[in-house]
Amino acid sequence: MTYTRTLACLRCAATYPDPSLELVGRGCPSCEAGGVPANVLPVYDLSGRNAVPVADGEPGLFRYRALLPLAADTRAVSLAEGATPVVALPAVAAELGVGTVVVKDETRNPTWSYKDRLAAVAVTKAVELGINTVVVASTGNHGAAIAAYAARAGLRCVVLTVASVPSTMKTLMQVYGASVVALPEPRQRWSLMRELVRTFGWLAMSGHADPPVGSNPYGVDGYKTIAYELVEQLPSPPDVVVVPTAYADGLAGIARGFADLVALGLIERAPRMVAAEPFGPHAAALASGSELAGPVPYEPSVAFSTASPVGTFQGLSALRSTGGSAVAVPDDGVTLRAQRDLAASAGLYQEAASATAWPALATLAAQGSLGRDASVVVIGTSTGLKDVGATAATLPEVPVIEPTADALLAAIGT
Amino acid sequence: MTYTRTLACLRCAATYPDPSLELVGRGCPSCEAGGVPANVLPVYDLSGRNAVPVADGEPGLFRYRALLPLAADTRAVSLAEGATPVVALPAVAAELGVGTVVVKDETRNPTWSYKDRLAAVAVTKAVELGINTVVVASTGNHGAAIAAYAARAGLRCVVLTVASVPSTMKTLMQVYGASVVALPEPRQRWSLMRELVRTFGWLAMSGHADPPVGSNPYGVDGYKTIAYELVEQLPSPPDVVVVPTAYADGLAGIARGFADLVALGLIERAPRMVAAEPFGPHAAALASGSELAGPVPYEPSVAFSTASPVGTFQGLSALRSTGGSAVAVPDDGVTLRAQRDLAASAGLYQEAASATAWPALATLAAQGSLGRDASVVVIGTSTGLKDVGATAATLPEVPVIEPTADALLAAIGT
Repeated sequence: MTYTRTLACLRCAATYPDPSLELVGRGCPSCEAGGVPANVLPVYDLSGRNAVPVADGEPGLFRYRALLPLAADTRAVSLAEGATPVVALPAVAAELGVGTVVVKDETRNPTWSYKDRLAAVAVTKAVELGINTVVVASTGNHGAAIAAYAARAGLRCVVLTVASVPSTMKTLMQVYGASVVALPEPRQRWSLMRELVRTFGWLAMSGHADPPVGSNPYGVDGYKTIAYELVEQLPSPPDVVVVPTAYADGLAGIARGFADLVALGLIERAPRMVAAEPFGPHAAALASGSELAGPVPYEPSVAFSTASPVGTFQGLSALRSTGGSAVAVPDDGVTLRAQRDLAASAGLYQEAASATAWPALATLAAQGSLGRDASVVVIGTSTGLKDVGATAATLPEVPVIEPTADALLAAIGT
Repeated sequence: MTYTRTLACLRCAATYPDPSLELVGRGCPSCEAGGVPANVLPVYDLSGRNAVPVADGEPGLFRYRALLPLAADTRAVSLAEGATPVVALPAVAAELGVGTVVVKDETRNPTWSYKDRLAAVAVTKAVELGINTVVVASTGNHGAAIAAYAARAGLRCVVLTVASVPSTMKTLMQVYGASVVALPEPRQRWSLMRELVRTFGWLAMSGHADPPVGSNPYGVDGYKTIAYELVEQLPSPPDVVVVPTAYADGLAGIARGFADLVALGLIERAPRMVAAEPFGPHAAALASGSELAGPVPYEPSVAFSTASPVGTFQGLSALRSTGGSAVAVPDDGVTLRAQRDLAASAGLYQEAASATAWPALATLAAQGSLGRDASVVVIGTSTGLKDVGATAATLPEVPVIEPTADALLAAIGT
């Protein structure tokens, strides 16, 4: 065990004993009182270690359970998540003028998004703590992942969503047996969740601070496993890791995994983390030096999974500590074109929110800030199947033709 | 190299040199002339071997390339397919009265179905043969997989589909850059494909015989890798393997993989193969002793990926040679309930066609034909995301509620 059974504020370093359930999804009370809400995250003791401990008999990402915030005897709630492949894109690397570009294809997870890593650890922690109901505010991927793992664990799951989420996402959350309700306004989900947590002892699987701090701290550390896997998979540690980002659970968790690898002496330095975000709250805060990411102006976006006017302190912390950057990609047309280009050139169909990574990378390349030999990883966060309608609107109707070669050639323009 | 560069008819054992492009998708001409079309499939020489040769440096399923029908120097077209996990379902095993039940979760492939195994090998073979255009008749999964791999390889891809396929499937095939057209009648796709193959030298990625023989023979052997993976993953070889089936490419390929393992001396006997099929053409032929699987009566089905009135000789051959069976699951309501039950109890959301495996298994259990200690594998062929609409129609609307705990409890019925 390397987990110290404490949580520490990422901003003021105050520590709290595990479990401090009232802090899950809320963050550090004293920083909140000071006007800069910040997440509290698990603390580990890695002293005397020089390797990532691996438990080969454990399912999915629990092979790394010695670096996860769990008791030693807690039984893993797993759907065989993680161990996702990397797919190399040599043509993209050449176009960007970098050494290598790979996609870490997180669509290969149980509910086809990287949120399964968060869900696996957060739901396992709920079982460890004897919780019977988990509650999550989500526009889709997060809720679906929690619902699936709650089903696997036999826990009740309540999802608070908004009416505007694509129907695919609603169905996906419901089919796993979760109780799904919509609130008129997105922020109402947070106040209601806080009430539910306080009143009924349900465990928050996402944040309920306003402005947000990020998700369930145990779940955030599920993303650390992406870093561990990448250093096993790649010939050398990455220089740049691009993460499509809203509240930066993934960005912060991956950066924490790389920080572990530095502390263990396995890599020299953490890669630069890059946030691709539709409207740029992290980008604005990096530019102004603020500790608060947003709010920035926003509007409905095809990248609905990450279309947030606000970011988090945990996101800014990961970006600043790694010399990283954030890039706003607000144009739906640009995003959808990047989505189609990747599918048609490389055979990878990623969700629109995930596709914002490519225009963000192109922006950094144009600024000359990537480095000629850079090894770049893009986190492919979720499948395009989660919102096919947005893609379909950019494609022609499938023509019905007579069954002749001539009719076919005419239809396909040859 | 174990591949002999010959193809042999599965029925009359006539051999043909590789490549015999006119036989791809058509099968053995003499059996066709005799009225029982049968696929021609690759022949290997395993003499003197006692292990599955593994090429660790190769991507995806090409780690097994010594047992695939490829030249030694052909470069793999891979999207890191295969190596899918198994997920154990102890509660289902207890309910069925068998030893163990696991799902081989093939939704973890690049286009989220097991057709990626076929596509990886068939498209690689197309590149080996210097083909510039591939053509496929498909209602979705098959076409999407071929389109993605053709994109990865830089080949042109033409998909012949029917107007009734779900819009998600059309979009998925199109987004990878394929030219997708619909024909008025399903069988018109086969005659047109045969014309295109003969006239332009395009390579058939699916069958164009009528009645069908099955798909591209190189692609069929991509499914062999499922058997190789299963014996690595499971504590002991499976006794029963259930495959949702139409033209039985998957069923036949998996059975061929187990036959390899028997020939190599790695397992004692092949598992019993079970076909789950909406309308039962294989079941009818097994009952009557026919060499022709169907046609049987059929109608539109929520299991559109496997809703065929006809099966194939390759399917019957795999079932008969393993002492297997086929079960018709014609009721959409039963299929959709099985889909929801698996999602809500185990956290796995499979396509409706895939969900027919569960009622089929229940039928066999009720007949007492599974065996008390049987190790059962169900191939989870594709994700429920491929046709979310069918699932959504069985679920309640997501209610919009006031942001209070009371309103929430009322909405979720607590």
